[in-house]
Amino acid sequence: MRAWLQGLIAEGPFPPRRAVFFRSALVVCIVVSTAIAILDTSEGIWGQHEELARDFSALLLLVLTADYGLRLLTAGFSPQEGETALKARLRYTLSLYGIFDFMAVVPFLVGEAFDLPRDGATIFGILRFLKLARYSPALETLGVVVLNELRPLLASLFIMLLMAIASSTLLYFAERSVNPGFKSVSDAMWWSIVTLSTLGYGDVVPTTVLGKLLGSVVAVLGLCMFALPASILASGFSEEMRRQNFVSTWHLVAKVPFFARLQANQIAEIASLLKLSRAIKGEVLMREGDTGECMYFIVSGQVEVKGKGGTFVLKNGDFFGEIALIERCPRTATVKAISRCQLLVLDARDFHKFVAHDHALLEVIWETARSRMAMDNIQPSGGGLPPVPKA
Amino acid sequence: MRAWLQGLIAEGPFPPRRAVFFRSALVVCIVVSTAIAILDTSEGIWGQHEELARDFSALLLLVLTADYGLRLLTAGFSPQEGETALKARLRYTLSLYGIFDFMAVVPFLVGEAFDLPRDGATIFGILRFLKLARYSPALETLGVVVLNELRPLLASLFIMLLMAIASSTLLYFAERSVNPGFKSVSDAMWWSIVTLSTLGYGDVVPTTVLGKLLGSVVAVLGLCMFALPASILASGFSEEMRRQNFVSTWHLVAKVPFFARLQANQIAEIASLLKLSRAIKGEVLMREGDTGECMYFIVSGQVEVKGKGGTFVLKNGDFFGEIALIERCPRTATVKAISRCQLLVLDARDFHKFVAHDHALLEVIWETARSRMAMDNIQPSGGGLPPVPKA
Amino acid sequence: MRAWLQGLIAEGPFPPRRAVFFRSALVVCIVVSTAIAILDTSEGIWGQHEELARDFSALLLLVLTADYGLRLLTAGFSPQEGETALKARLRYTLSLYGIFDFMAVVPFLVGEAFDLPRDGATIFGILRFLKLARYSPALETLGVVVLNELRPLLASLFIMLLMAIASSTLLYFAERSVNPGFKSVSDAMWWSIVTLSTLGYGDVVPTTVLGKLLGSVVAVLGLCMFALPASILASGFSEEMRRQNFVSTWHLVAKVPFFARLQANQIAEIASLLKLSRAIKGEVLMREGDTGECMYFIVSGQVEVKGKGGTFVLKNGDFFGEIALIERCPRTATVKAISRCQLLVLDARDFHKFVAHDHALLEVIWETARSRMAMDNIQPSGGGLPPVPKA
Amino acid sequence: MRAWLQGLIAEGPFPPRRAVFFRSALVVCIVVSTAIAILDTSEGIWGQHEELARDFSALLLLVLTADYGLRLLTAGFSPQEGETALKARLRYTLSLYGIFDFMAVVPFLVGEAFDLPRDGATIFGILRFLKLARYSPALETLGVVVLNELRPLLASLFIMLLMAIASSTLLYFAERSVNPGFKSVSDAMWWSIVTLSTLGYGDVVPTTVLGKLLGSVVAVLGLCMFALPASILASGFSEEMRRQNFVSTWHLVAKVPFFARLQANQIAEIASLLKLSRAIKGEVLMREGDTGECMYFIVSGQVEVKGKGGTFVLKNGDFFGEIALIERCPRTATVKAISRCQLLVLDARDFHKFVAHDHALLEVIWETARSRMAMDNIQPSGGGLPPVPKA
Repeated sequence: MRAWLQGLIAEGPFPPRRAVFFRSALVVCIVVSTAIAILDTSEGIWGQHEELARDFSALLLLVLTADYGLRLLTAGFSPQEGETALKARLRYTLSLYGIFDFMAVVPFLVGEAFDLPRDGATIFGILRFLKLARYSPALETLGVVVLNELRPLLASLFIMLLMAIASSTLLYFAERSVNPGFKSVSDAMWWSIVTLSTLGYGDVVPTTVLGKLLGSVVAVLGLCMFALPASILASGFSEEMRRQNFVSTWHLVAKVPFFARLQANQIAEIASLLKLSRAIKGEVLMREGDTGECMYFIVSGQVEVKGKGGTFVLKNGDFFGEIALIERCPRTATVKAISRCQLLVLDARDFHKFVAHDHALLEVIWETARSRMAMDNIQPSGGGLPPVPKA
Repeated sequence: MRAWLQGLIAEGPFPPRRAVFFRSALVVCIVVSTAIAILDTSEGIWGQHEELARDFSALLLLVLTADYGLRLLTAGFSPQEGETALKARLRYTLSLYGIFDFMAVVPFLVGEAFDLPRDGATIFGILRFLKLARYSPALETLGVVVLNELRPLLASLFIMLLMAIASSTLLYFAERSVNPGFKSVSDAMWWSIVTLSTLGYGDVVPTTVLGKLLGSVVAVLGLCMFALPASILASGFSEEMRRQNFVSTWHLVAKVPFFARLQANQIAEIASLLKLSRAIKGEVLMREGDTGECMYFIVSGQVEVKGKGGTFVLKNGDFFGEIALIERCPRTATVKAISRCQLLVLDARDFHKFVAHDHALLEVIWETARSRMAMDNIQPSGGGLPPVPKA
Repeated sequence: MRAWLQGLIAEGPFPPRRAVFFRSALVVCIVVSTAIAILDTSEGIWGQHEELARDFSALLLLVLTADYGLRLLTAGFSPQEGETALKARLRYTLSLYGIFDFMAVVPFLVGEAFDLPRDGATIFGILRFLKLARYSPALETLGVVVLNELRPLLASLFIMLLMAIASSTLLYFAERSVNPGFKSVSDAMWWSIVTLSTLGYGDVVPTTVLGKLLGSVVAVLGLCMFALPASILASGFSEEMRRQNFVSTWHLVAKVPFFARLQANQIAEIASLLKLSRAIKGEVLMREGDTGECMYFIVSGQVEVKGKGGTFVLKNGDFFGEIALIERCPRTATVKAISRCQLLVLDARDFHKFVAHDHALLEVIWETARSRMAMDNIQPSGGGLPPVPKA
Repeated sequence: MRAWLQGLIAEGPFPPRRAVFFRSALVVCIVVSTAIAILDTSEGIWGQHEELARDFSALLLLVLTADYGLRLLTAGFSPQEGETALKARLRYTLSLYGIFDFMAVVPFLVGEAFDLPRDGATIFGILRFLKLARYSPALETLGVVVLNELRPLLASLFIMLLMAIASSTLLYFAERSVNPGFKSVSDAMWWSIVTLSTLGYGDVVPTTVLGKLLGSVVAVLGLCMFALPASILASGFSEEMRRQNFVSTWHLVAKVPFFARLQANQIAEIASLLKLSRAIKGEVLMREGDTGECMYFIVSGQVEVKGKGGTFVLKNGDFFGEIALIERCPRTATVKAISRCQLLVLDARDFHKFVAHDHALLEVIWETARSRMAMDNIQPSGGGLPPVPKA
């Protein structure tokens, strides 16, 4: 029972089937519940179906409450070393996701019980959306990026503030006598922000010639300066995503015997070239006759290879797809996943850059390829690879 | 006849002349036909020429129908191994481009026959534009990029949604009592989206001091956050374009005997340095006296070299333009394509980085250059290249 | 006394406690003082508290005046070689920050004394904000970037001007007869700038069909062209930030004995991989059981390492966190700063790329790791690192 | 006389003094003349000074005519091999800049002579701005970039068109019955373009719920898709700028004897690290006591080095500034240009990465540095550089 409940909220690459269902149901509940809280602020939107919306909303809340209870319960099942179940539950309650789960249900229930003002219900109803954060790495990644790039971000913020202050002061003096939108520097500041961020609502617009001249300069400068933080965040974000991919690949590489012969620096190099990929049962990974632009290493799971020479099964630690890379020919076999698989994918370009100049590595791949081609009656050409001593 | 029809819709780098004509005519037909369908929604735009527009539109439809018939017919001419002509045609019909071709004509004809509502004619008329997708790699590339970058894209979508929800909730509470544009959270959401995407229509604008303060923060944050997906897509798109270029160059390199002596990892390296270029018959590739910043390898076709020492012809497998790179001098000859050519271009910088430190390669180029310079009576200086054993 | 005063305005990574307080107080004063100057332009904003605002403003001015006096005084305490105290003070007065400090107080005081117009007070009140520039590298960095990238920036400015002129001329001819916003080319120029910078106020909008067509093209081209300077500045800015980081890291590397054995080119390489980090007293740098993705080198300060095998102290020149990188295991100890520390951080990826293939370096790290693991009773596995001769 | 006239319009890095004056005067004339043509379209802007403006304009035209005549004349002075003076002048007349020069004066004069409509005067008056193109590499660079990146640019243009068509069709059906801005697909297209380019004039805005929902999606997608061409152009532009810098540096490197010992691939490597810099007579290149972050190679010109050990002069082929890089100490001398200089600058980071691991190179620099330090009585430390055999 305990295991079943824990499985219900399990995460990781291959959760049990019930976890997939539960998660999907929960995501739908959260989205619908947030949507109802948002729509609820439009008066009379439900028309005569208000009762129905109310009931449906209560039903969703029930699911969210059940989810919170479940997580609180299971948090106590696997305490860390030297921790009581109670302490483990307390740790969950005070964790970020625990607080999000709490906010999704408790304040609302308290509000209902004590007949508190409706605004609270709206706020906490909308905050339910934060429960989704558990399923997306985005918020954590963004946090890391903001911390990493704090200095350049603050620097560009300072520049932006300086520009906003300078441009609103200038426009205030240019327009104050004729334009009510610039009758004080703080009013002009609203125009500055709207202009520098290239929003351009048009509710406040310079009307004098001098104002338009200054406004033009501000517009162009704003375009340049306000791109700084956007660009810092954007490049930091993709760098961080790449780094996370490296770390997860790096740990998986150790599980593939083929890479065991590599030295640490080679592993670090190939780990940044490999891309992690997953396949579900029955997925076709390559089709005979297609152009082949990558090879695969199996981390876990099994695939079925169906070529001219027959059918065989490959499992974790094996690789496939190397023939098309060595021979520059179309795929010579069709490969289908016969269980859930984790795969590491190596591009044609990276294959030749990395693998092909390491004789020991190449020999292993070459030998495998040759024996497979013999099975399919394909004549090896070598595709420009250096000659390898006959096995 | 079969070959003639197949040639009519042939693709690839050098299609027959009739294919070029047919394709151009078809592109014009598609563009004009889409334009007519769009303009047709403006009432009375044709004035008294409505009959003419109707007739012209029918004519265009005829061409598109002919194109569909032609493709359906020829699809059966070259079936894959173990496929009947019928099955090959069915495969075309169900392919993406087959469906686009189908949608361009059939629904319209059906609608005309059965006198269906005019909206359908409008929709399918506009959808004809999709037929152009066949001639642009953009849609496929974009699809690949979106799949490759799915995780970061979804992550940034989540951040955007979170920001939209948070900012509309905040503004709703700040402005709801005085501003009809914020009278519910869903109304405020429209403002949020318009602001976060830096559109700034100005139909809904915060008017209170608190609203403007919050709006300023939202505008600046929006600028930063909404740049994430744009930047992810943009860098993924150019990366994918570069990868496609690598793959096509990599296959062409194998056709140039000069590169045959390279090892696989060197081929992979040079393939990412080379750029593919095409020349039509009569095109002048370099002119004596110009500054020379690259050398060329001929993949297919022939060129005529006219220098001080006379005129000679080079064909596929040969290279030219190396003297200017070695001697850092202006071009010593004028080179003209005398047939359609596929060329691989190597930059000065890449030449020196890659070719010049490989003695074997260098010797070949050097020897060729020396014999050509002898013909033109140019004194070789070496331009900093290491001495090469005399041939 | 002299030293105490100098300490008050000391800068650098670890200023004395009083400098931190003084700086914080000053920043608050500057921000509040600027804010008051801005708000002061809104008539009647203080209501009946005007007297209070006036007094408070005077108080802030007193602090800023004291700061200026202090800086002027201390500038004379440490003159450069062969300089009198007076000359050193004059140098400060004429330096950029000296001028900012001067403008923050003197013009205002002069204005008050001679009853000059209020606009001056507003301007110089707002200019106080520039005093903050001392605490942000942003302005200097931006200046360097603009100088470095002057040629491409001017080039893109020229393109932008050309586009603005061309598009306003075109729209002027298309719209002049019907649209008052385009009744001269200079009027149309305002529309051009607002459109090309994607502001789109909407105060002037083309209304004819031709105007809208041209406007569409201008909008799309503007999007492309006006991204040029933004992108040049943004990439220059992050490049410059990275360069500044390199220079400061490069100087610190020399202080870590561990790096003394490296050759100059290796130092230059690792200096661009290391990131500078600071820790305050009591900060926990890593926690036992966490995933470990970097190792640390101590430049200055002391840390306490608490593992299973006991507690020990590391000081400047030592490193820690290497076990998790070599063994790919979670952290085996908790590390806390017991004084203010400057640390150099090396990423897992960079560790393996740089350190692991240098046998001499690796041996040092490996030996330390092994002796520490022995203390904690951890069995070394090697994590793919090459075998090292037993010590 | 001929030489004097040719010198007047000379270009290149160090033109004679009269060329600098002439160019400056011409730029001012062009800018003012264009400005007058623009302002001239505002009726009554000159008030009673119309006569004056007319006269001044005629004066400027005289200068431009003189410039055209001068260029036409001097074009015949230095014909290419086997070309008559007339043919050389014709070549200039038909060159791009020749046409710009022609358009700046001839059509206007013709117009005046034959009393042609005023619009022509306006157009050709504004087109004078194109004469400036001669002094900016921007237009040429942009042309090269657009040609280089034609395929991805067209691909993204296709995506943009597709999005504009799809979104205007969708919004047309959503809004046509209630919103006059969407009463036909072509009307909706205006909204699409304005929205997809994030302009957001606000003249046409969706008003229905469905319209706003679709509009939100279009806004976000537009943000992503319309960043593609901007990003392609921006990265192509800076890549091209970098490439142009490489080519000019690469040619200059050959003039510095110090680099003569390098092999071609090393030259190509260092040429992409060096930055070209120019100094006018009297400019101070470094000041004793400053932090030193780069060293200089003199391509042409002379500098004066003033250190503790005395003053000496360096000329083309020499280098300076190396001590601060080797010793990581502040500058030990002040260096001033005593004639116009072309310099190649090498960064600290690049110095250590490139120079320091090449023993032969290092020895030369080291020896020079040691002898200079001996003169200034500085004790060499070596700064982590490998020991060099005593000279």
